[in-house]
Amino acid sequence: MQNLIFSNDVEGSLQRLMAGGNTNMTVYIADVNTARFVGERERLIIIPDGDENKTLETVTRVWEQMERIGVTRHSLIVNMGGGMVTDLGGFAAATFKRGVRFINVPTTLLGAVDAAVGGKTGFNFKGLKNEIGAFAPASDVIISTRYLDTLPIEEMKSGFAEVIKHAMLSDRSEFLRLLNHDFSAPINHDDLLERLRRSVQVKVDIVARDPGEQGERKALNLGHTVGHALESLAMKRGNPVPHGYTVAWGLVTEAVLSHILLKFPSEDVHRLGHFVSDNYRDFPFTCDDYDELLDLMRHDKKSRDGEITCTLLKAIGDYHIDQTITPNDITAALDILRDHLGI
Amino acid sequence: MQNLIFSNDVEGSLQRLMAGGNTNMTVYIADVNTARFVGERERLIIIPDGDENKTLETVTRVWEQMERIGVTRHSLIVNMGGGMVTDLGGFAAATFKRGVRFINVPTTLLGAVDAAVGGKTGFNFKGLKNEIGAFAPASDVIISTRYLDTLPIEEMKSGFAEVIKHAMLSDRSEFLRLLNHDFSAPINHDDLLERLRRSVQVKVDIVARDPGEQGERKALNLGHTVGHALESLAMKRGNPVPHGYTVAWGLVTEAVLSHILLKFPSEDVHRLGHFVSDNYRDFPFTCDDYDELLDLMRHDKKSRDGEITCTLLKAIGDYHIDQTITPNDITAALDILRDHLGI
Repeated sequence: MQNLIFSNDVEGSLQRLMAGGNTNMTVYIADVNTARFVGERERLIIIPDGDENKTLETVTRVWEQMERIGVTRHSLIVNMGGGMVTDLGGFAAATFKRGVRFINVPTTLLGAVDAAVGGKTGFNFKGLKNEIGAFAPASDVIISTRYLDTLPIEEMKSGFAEVIKHAMLSDRSEFLRLLNHDFSAPINHDDLLERLRRSVQVKVDIVARDPGEQGERKALNLGHTVGHALESLAMKRGNPVPHGYTVAWGLVTEAVLSHILLKFPSEDVHRLGHFVSDNYRDFPFTCDDYDELLDLMRHDKKSRDGEITCTLLKAIGDYHIDQTITPNDITAALDILRDHLGI
Repeated sequence: MQNLIFSNDVEGSLQRLMAGGNTNMTVYIADVNTARFVGERERLIIIPDGDENKTLETVTRVWEQMERIGVTRHSLIVNMGGGMVTDLGGFAAATFKRGVRFINVPTTLLGAVDAAVGGKTGFNFKGLKNEIGAFAPASDVIISTRYLDTLPIEEMKSGFAEVIKHAMLSDRSEFLRLLNHDFSAPINHDDLLERLRRSVQVKVDIVARDPGEQGERKALNLGHTVGHALESLAMKRGNPVPHGYTVAWGLVTEAVLSHILLKFPSEDVHRLGHFVSDNYRDFPFTCDDYDELLDLMRHDKKSRDGEITCTLLKAIGDYHIDQTITPNDITAALDILRDHLGI
């Protein structure tokens, strides 16, 4: 089980975690942007940023540097960065000498509520996202809001889509509270840390019941069947969109599908639709893209035999995995999404 | 927990295992020598043989072929070969899409009693053996003796050293029975399968109590602290020796150390010494190599702070992990080993 620490005293938390074990060396992994959060006297492996560098070549360079520095099974790795750093650094640590203990310190909202928790690690291979990887949980995750003040607003919005997803899987009052969020206001750290605590707990509870993604964990895929297809298409066109934007659009589309197939209340579809159209505009797709989107959904890592399945809701908190959806349903739902976004 | 099947009806066993799941595709991984054991109509990924090919490049080529063939999370991988195939194929399967189910069918004695069971997977990196890897057990292991009739006698002897090791950790009557083995006689399949069943059970019981090698699993390292150093030195000199030969020599050396430090009965040291000198001759080291051997032991993956530790015995079946040994003790024990081998 992962130890989760919600605190803006990151250094103090790390000190306490290191005091506990009998660690012979601590090595930080960060990217070119998050290296500044690492103390000057620490051992540090810097990796390039960006999804295009989430590759076997980068993993290999991390292994080589671990070798050079002299990392052993009694060492500790601290991954400090966004999802790219915790995914790739986690994989490198989990496989070096068959496993070195590692701690995640997410520095983005998306990392805090999603990537850093739950044990998925890996890298892209042959153009496929996270195609190679392992289920290998960080021993500890320190979740804070202290790195978020300087985070670009697009990245805040991107992470917030996953926060909304977690609320949709669990708690309608939290869902309604989140839809009042104002991205232009300065961060209220106490309030945001409490939102993160609740959000992460939803993921932790689901992962604990299904760590290897055999069944229930697919609930966390809400919004992602459609979202991933949108993300892949944008990527293929050389015009990438932040992950969370595609999740936000996916959540609306799958809420519409939930309404069509499971009578999810239209009231909640509309509330969500308004929030997404207010905050996640610039949807770069038209009805000419539907065929390609359907094709991408059929080839998703989680799909079987070309059938498109996703997680749908009967109501906020009442999720149903492995729901088969037809191309017609999806086309109709995408039309309604585009209506909401006014395009 | 791994499902172990002891049977010489390998095809029938595989059929029954496949009937159980809802597998969409079965893909075999074999090396250039063991590919002939795979049915002609099966999907097959062939890798080069030999420890020098147990590399990231080979793993990458396996991942690429899995991609090309269309392996999904609902596919099944069957690793058919020696330790190289089950180690490397297991790692490739365990990390492809974060984990595809795999079955090991060891075709060597060493693979059957050691590599294929217990969940260690990986490959060599920067000249270091199994430096990158994962603890990822095969779902099922089919152990048979049917591939052993054509196995070179050096490989039979190599695997047999691990069989002796397991008896030394557990059962004196089995230990004494094994020391009567005659490698020049034809294989008695029923008897050998029973020996394998007992041998593998020793490993399984120990691994079950310590899957991640935090403590007790180090018992399985008996003979390997000295053995690995001998193996590495032979490799460095471009004159590699079969793994099990170095284990056999390591077992005698560590039995002598056990006698010196824990009063392990000299009677059993001598019985073992005679068997090893009868069957594992051609020891290619002299006292001029001791300094380099000690250095290699200090840098073993399992050593800490330059201290040399190993597993020692008070008696057959009564093992003690993490025993610190001094360079003087080791030098004395290596002298006695060389006496036994008459060189």
